[in-house]
Parts: sequence; structure tokens; C-alpha cells
Amino acid sequence: MLERNQQESGVDLLAVVPGANLRYLTGLEMHTSERITLALFPLGGQPVFVLPGLEAPSAEAALKIEASLYTYTDEQGPGAAFRQMATDLDLEGKVFGVEHLHMRVLELRRLEKHADHAKFVDADPLLSGLRIVKDKEEIEALRRAAEANQECFRQVMKHIQPGVTEQELAVIWQRAALEAENSQMSDQPPIVASGPNGASPHTTATSRRLQNGDLVTIDAFLLVDGYYSDITRTYAVGEPDDELQRIYSVVQEANAAARAIIKPRIEAQEVDRTARQVIDKAGYGEYFIHRTGHGMGLEIHEEPNIVEGNDLLLEPGMVFTVEPGIYVTDLGGVRIEDNVLVTETGCETLTTLPRELTRL
Amino acid sequence: MLERNQQESGVDLLAVVPGANLRYLTGLEMHTSERITLALFPLGGQPVFVLPGLEAPSAEAALKIEASLYTYTDEQGPGAAFRQMATDLDLEGKVFGVEHLHMRVLELRRLEKHADHAKFVDADPLLSGLRIVKDKEEIEALRRAAEANQECFRQVMKHIQPGVTEQELAVIWQRAALEAENSQMSDQPPIVASGPNGASPHTTATSRRLQNGDLVTIDAFLLVDGYYSDITRTYAVGEPDDELQRIYSVVQEANAAARAIIKPRIEAQEVDRTARQVIDKAGYGEYFIHRTGHGMGLEIHEEPNIVEGNDLLLEPGMVFTVEPGIYVTDLGGVRIEDNVLVTETGCETLTTLPRELTRL
Repeated sequence: MLERNQQESGVDLLAVVPGANLRYLTGLEMHTSERITLALFPLGGQPVFVLPGLEAPSAEAALKIEASLYTYTDEQGPGAAFRQMATDLDLEGKVFGVEHLHMRVLELRRLEKHADHAKFVDADPLLSGLRIVKDKEEIEALRRAAEANQECFRQVMKHIQPGVTEQELAVIWQRAALEAENSQMSDQPPIVASGPNGASPHTTATSRRLQNGDLVTIDAFLLVDGYYSDITRTYAVGEPDDELQRIYSVVQEANAAARAIIKPRIEAQEVDRTARQVIDKAGYGEYFIHRTGHGMGLEIHEEPNIVEGNDLLLEPGMVFTVEPGIYVTDLGGVRIEDNVLVTETGCETLTTLPRELTRL
Repeated sequence: MLERNQQESGVDLLAVVPGANLRYLTGLEMHTSERITLALFPLGGQPVFVLPGLEAPSAEAALKIEASLYTYTDEQGPGAAFRQMATDLDLEGKVFGVEHLHMRVLELRRLEKHADHAKFVDADPLLSGLRIVKDKEEIEALRRAAEANQECFRQVMKHIQPGVTEQELAVIWQRAALEAENSQMSDQPPIVASGPNGASPHTTATSRRLQNGDLVTIDAFLLVDGYYSDITRTYAVGEPDDELQRIYSVVQEANAAARAIIKPRIEAQEVDRTARQVIDKAGYGEYFIHRTGHGMGLEIHEEPNIVEGNDLLLEPGMVFTVEPGIYVTDLGGVRIEDNVLVTETGCETLTTLPRELTRL
């Protein structure tokens, strides 16, 4: 399938840097650093790696495919390895597909240097085309990730009460995440946003203490067996005021309405429109300041994008979030985020935590 | 100082993406995603941000400097915001400094699109020039990071014994890291490499159980208050065989010799040569397959690079690792990594965990 996509896109060589695509294509989990690692997939040929010599033992052990390795030491730098590889592969004038979302200027300039008259095109559509429909094994990993993340939320829920800080709740989630089987920690702690802090959809947990009447929004993603889950729930501390309760109901309705219409052959933007209509109608349209969802899999954000303007037709096996929200400055915010799998007849919601307002 | 460096490098506009440089220049901690965030620093003018609207509330609250913000929604995408910004700043024909180590092709192509006839040069030397000498506050943060990381090592040491798995030890380190004050988790767990696994310098903890006679190498970095510590120690499980003990002594001697010569006005490569000479002389030169160290601060790897070929003169306030190692296939490996601060008269080793072979 990679070969067919390359052919259709007119890509002679697909260039891939460490990250989700490299993992998907080769099984290799590597990290970006100042030492360049680059894989090239020549159309119809054997993949080629340029990588630091000190990474070679781990890479050879983990590689699931046949490949040629060009290594270099810290003293040498990558120049000679790239030169040799360029000569062996005859890179002049070739069309390279590169990952706009992942490749750095560092790797681009390096390729330009060793491939005269080459052309560089965006390979992200080609690559997301490979990854957008999940197979059985991937769906099982996504299920495990969702369940493990839910268990972390259950741990946090036990500690939601007046006086606890946002940061303390974030650490409780992280502790639970660390104990989850085959989990991998993230360098981004969960969002915990209470009271007026909830008005900012992307914020960091602070030392603010929860108070009676607060809503508190917790948004956390967890990686299990290489696949993500991304969940948001908003809880009440005691009894929030009427407007917050009304906002909560509107978001809950938007979440339910959007999930209810998901099925194969509808456009991705239809899901966004459905959630937005509910919120618009309730008079909060201007406070729903982001798309309704994003795909997830090996990356926390990937295709399909659930946004106005995306007329992509949904297919069975696609997995994405549904996460409408309302954010009102000085008052607070609500977001309810689920993970859904498109099925043959509709959709299955992988996340099952209660969506009614829970008062703690 | 930024302005002077820009002037000297002939950079009209410095373009910075989320990461260490953005944090250093603005106080803003943001994350890379498919939604472009980009800061431009026009020479002698006020900084300008293009960023997603949903990030704007947090960004405005965290920004330590005056700046103009151009925002966009998910529906709009960044096109119109970039166009408006390009018109206001008159980008045509300008020289942009871009971070080769951090900017993606995504941001580069976006800038190229909105700045006709612009020239793009590597701004990494300019930026590392700003960051390479640490001030008092940064050094205090680096000290706290080193001490917190050492405490994590002390926790792990208690559990090193036959039968425990590498993965279990990695989780013990992570648990301790999570409890450290102002720490931030990493998406890379510590390296725990026991027995023959130690022959690979960059490997991942496995389910292998420690055995009597093993050496086990633990390499872990910890972020505290935004600054890194990076420590490696190799421990013995019971009594390793003679060759492993000999290798350990050689690495210990190389580490001590390299640290002993560090002082202002010697070349960075001299530190590498000193460590390498000890290992070469003992007959293990071909098994020391990486540079002797790397700078650290806001990033885990930054300047100065302690490698043959780097004739940079050390200065007081520079902070880097000294981490010689020997790796022998099928036998195992040893690495001893400390963090050092160049002082007016020599150097101070910030990491103080014992370096003699500890038998557990």
C-alpha cells in the first residue's frame, strides 16, 4: 500500500524522521535529537537508514524489515554517511516526499545538500492515508488505552473535593498512568482547570485550590502499547450556579448529538456542524472556540480532523475524538471528550465514563 | 544581547517555534502540534506571534514581554493570520533566522509562502550563543535538578537485586521523579541496561531480570523548574567478573581525568581527548563509541558539544555532561555520567553520587 501511495503521489523516495510514521513503517521507536536519523524508502527498493552509530545496535534489534544502514560517529558527523548513501541511491533530480509535520529544517537542508535538483513535496497526505483506517490490532490497542485512561480518571475522581489543588489532581492522574500496563508517560501533564481557569481550553494545572461550586475540567491523554486515548470530563464540586449547570447540559447534548450521527459515508465536517448547531442554538456559539475533534492513533492528533471545511467521508475503522466545549471568560468552562470508532453501521464510543454532571 | 546577535548575523527577523528558545526569549511554554505557532522577532521591533486562538488566553497570561498576537481558528487555519502579519511587517526580501534544530518544514513553507524573495539562514548558532553561559538563577535550577535526580537514583539503588526487572527499576525512578518538587515528566523513560544489554548505549528497559554478576547501567534525565539534570551510574549486582571490573575502573578513571582538566579557556575537545586517552591507553578505544559529553540547560542536549573537532573555548557558567563509556557486545557496558559547571578557576561537579563500583 505504501508503494501504491508513493506511485500515485509521484514520490520517488519517501523520507521519514523519528516519530509515528517511522514506527508505523518499520517498528522502530527512535527520538529526535541533534544527531540526524533519517529513513528513505525508494519506490520499489529496500529502505535505507542514516543514523548515529551508537543507535545502530538498538535499531538493528528492533527493525522489522530489511534495510541498509549508513552510520556515523559523533566525531565524523553525518556528512560522509549522507554522501555515500546519496551516491549509492543516485538522488539527483529525484522527487522526495517529506513529512511537513515532522521533518525539521535540519534534515531538509541535509537532503537538499546531497540531492542536486531534487524536488520536495509534502508526504503527510500519503502517510495519513496509510494510517487513517485502523486495523483490528490497532483498535484493540486503542481500546486498552481508553480503558487504562478511564481507570486513571476513576482514581482522580476519588480526590476531587474542596481544598485539593489542580496540580495535586494532575499528579494523581500521572501516578495512575505510570502504573498502567504498557503505558508510556507524556511530557505534557494532564490539563486540570477549575473555576475561572476552565475558561481557557489549553491551560496547565496550577496551585489553585478547588472551591465549592467550581466546575473542574480534566483532559488527559494516555499512550498504551503505542496508541493513544484522549479523554476530557468536567466534574462539579458541590453545586455549581445555574449558568454553569446550563452550559454543562448544552455541551453534554452537543457531545451526544455529534456521536449519534457518526456513520460511514458522512463528511467529517457534518460531525462538527452537528455539535456546533446544538451550542449555537443555546446561544453559546461564540464560546465554542475549537474544532469538534481530531483523529488519534500512533499520534495524539492525526487525521481525520473533525472541522468545518473537511469533506472527507468517514469510513469504518477511523478513530477520533468528539469534544465540544464552552469557555466563558471569568466564569469557567466545560468540555466532554469521548473517543469513537466508526463501525459498519454507525459508531462505537470507546470511552464509557459517565457524562451526566457528577457532583463531588 | 538578542539584538546584537541578530545584527552580527545579519538576521532581519528571528523566527522561533515552540520549545526551549521560545521559552528562553518569552517565558512561553507551548507545544508543537499541527496547529502552527510561530514567534517573529524583528530586529529592533516588538515581537509578533501567530498562534491558534484557543492558545491565546494561556499565552497572554504567561507572556513576559510586549508582543502583538495574530490568532486564527481551526476553521480558518493560519493562512489569513500569516497574510495579515506579513503585510504589517513587510516581509518581502527579508533575511529570516530559523531554528534548524526545531523548525519543521511546515513552518518553513508557511514563511516562504508569505515572504517573497526572503532568505533563510540557520539561527541555531545565534540562539545557542545566548544560552550557552548560564546565569545565577539558571545554575540554581540546574543544581536543584541534579539533586532531585540524585534522590531518584537513591530510591532505585534500594531495589537493585537479582530478580528485579529493568522495567521495574525504570518505573521506580519515574515514581520518584513524579514526586520531586517542580519536576516535569519526560516521554522517554530512563535507560536501564543490565548484563549484555549494557553493550548498547541507547537502549530501552526490558523485562530482563537482573542476575548475580551483572553490571546495570541507569541513565536518567530529569527536568526541574525547566532545567535538566542528566545522570548515569553503573552498579554491580554481586561480584562481576574481572573484565567487567577492569572496564569499570577504566571508565571511572576517564571520567575523573576529564573532569580534572576542565577550566576556562581550554577547548571543549580537550575534555573529550582526555577521557578518550585514558580509554585508548587501556585498550578499549574502539568501544567508546560516542562523544564525552553535551551541554545541558533548557534542553537535554545543547551546546557546548564535548567532542573532537570542537575548538570552542570553555567559559565560566557553561554546564555540560562528562560521560565516558565502554560497550562490549555480548559482555556488557559501563557509563559514568556527571554534570559539571565551569567556574572561574576550574569546574564544579554538580552531581555527587559515588563513582566507585557499588556492589548491591
